[in-house]
Amino acid sequence: MKVSLGAKPLALPTPAWLVGTYDADGRPNIATVAWCGVCCTEPPSIAVSLRKARHSHGAIVARKAFTVNVPSDRFVRETDYAGIVSGRAGDKFAATGLTSVPSDLVDAPFVDEFPLVIECRLAQIIEVGTHIQFIGEIVNVRADEAVLDANGLPDMLKVRPIVYDPGAKVYYGVGDAIGKAFSIGNEVKNGQE
Amino acid sequence: MKVSLGAKPLALPTPAWLVGTYDADGRPNIATVAWCGVCCTEPPSIAVSLRKARHSHGAIVARKAFTVNVPSDRFVRETDYAGIVSGRAGDKFAATGLTSVPSDLVDAPFVDEFPLVIECRLAQIIEVGTHIQFIGEIVNVRADEAVLDANGLPDMLKVRPIVYDPGAKVYYGVGDAIGKAFSIGNEVKNGQE
Repeated sequence: MKVSLGAKPLALPTPAWLVGTYDADGRPNIATVAWCGVCCTEPPSIAVSLRKARHSHGAIVARKAFTVNVPSDRFVRETDYAGIVSGRAGDKFAATGLTSVPSDLVDAPFVDEFPLVIECRLAQIIEVGTHIQFIGEIVNVRADEAVLDANGLPDMLKVRPIVYDPGAKVYYGVGDAIGKAFSIGNEVKNGQE
Repeated sequence: MKVSLGAKPLALPTPAWLVGTYDADGRPNIATVAWCGVCCTEPPSIAVSLRKARHSHGAIVARKAFTVNVPSDRFVRETDYAGIVSGRAGDKFAATGLTSVPSDLVDAPFVDEFPLVIECRLAQIIEVGTHIQFIGEIVNVRADEAVLDANGLPDMLKVRPIVYDPGAKVYYGVGDAIGKAFSIGNEVKNGQE
């Protein structure tokens, strides 16, 4: 029996990513977002939405660049902190002890301690409502060597990203592998169910 | 030590959601997407990206509506199937045994067996590249009563959504809760680390 919950952004799962930017004073900043996701394969593109009032909003508009930093679950405190506190109020890198590294490809910093970092050039600004969606063209992905699989791709269980529930406001880890894509569906296709 | 992987859409985690539409013949269809995410709080909005060649692309343009259907992990086979096969080739509801229910709010069907369903009115069409991003205004969320928590919100561990790794092409379940948002970050804020 389905019940209606009304017009609310209650999707599951959402990511918890940290957007890295330089502000007008050249200070590196990180802001946690859950309204985000990949949006194109070629050019590879990723979208992050921010309230206009957020410090990172002006930074992205000014520098036309940002990074998407994927925290491991052991950084859940830092991830939450970067969503609670504004970069206007202080230096979030200093407060968390995280290390800001300048990207040599885009005008934005990334978080050295996080296992997966996506460097983006601002491609489009979409007005949606309370939030502005920034579409970034991915110019490079950096990963810690230790989180790569045998094919040189980031391994989910080594990256250990955070999964966020925006309704109950709880962070989760990633669980077990449950199937290979473009493969397990053939069991339906072949009528084996 | 970070290594550069190049310009690729290697973000983690991504969702595995099924977009529900009616095609030109009025046939219900479902298509699996990973390039997607919430993009605004007010109006509550969600974005899904599809290749122009996909059957669902024309359906959304024509009907100006779609649903986002969140599968439980026990539907991983059906989820993968709906990403492998085109709606042009056959009836994916019939093949999977899933039930199509017409939304009474938007001109699109939803999947009855899935625990969480988001009904959307098409708000914007954004050309990104190989993919078109459809921004839908969420007009209602439906959830199975059985997956709601004590506050009437969808419970992550009852919904059991699928987490997707687009690099290795593997589906995962959700793991354990690791922290309360807007709360655990105060341990950093208060210098308790």
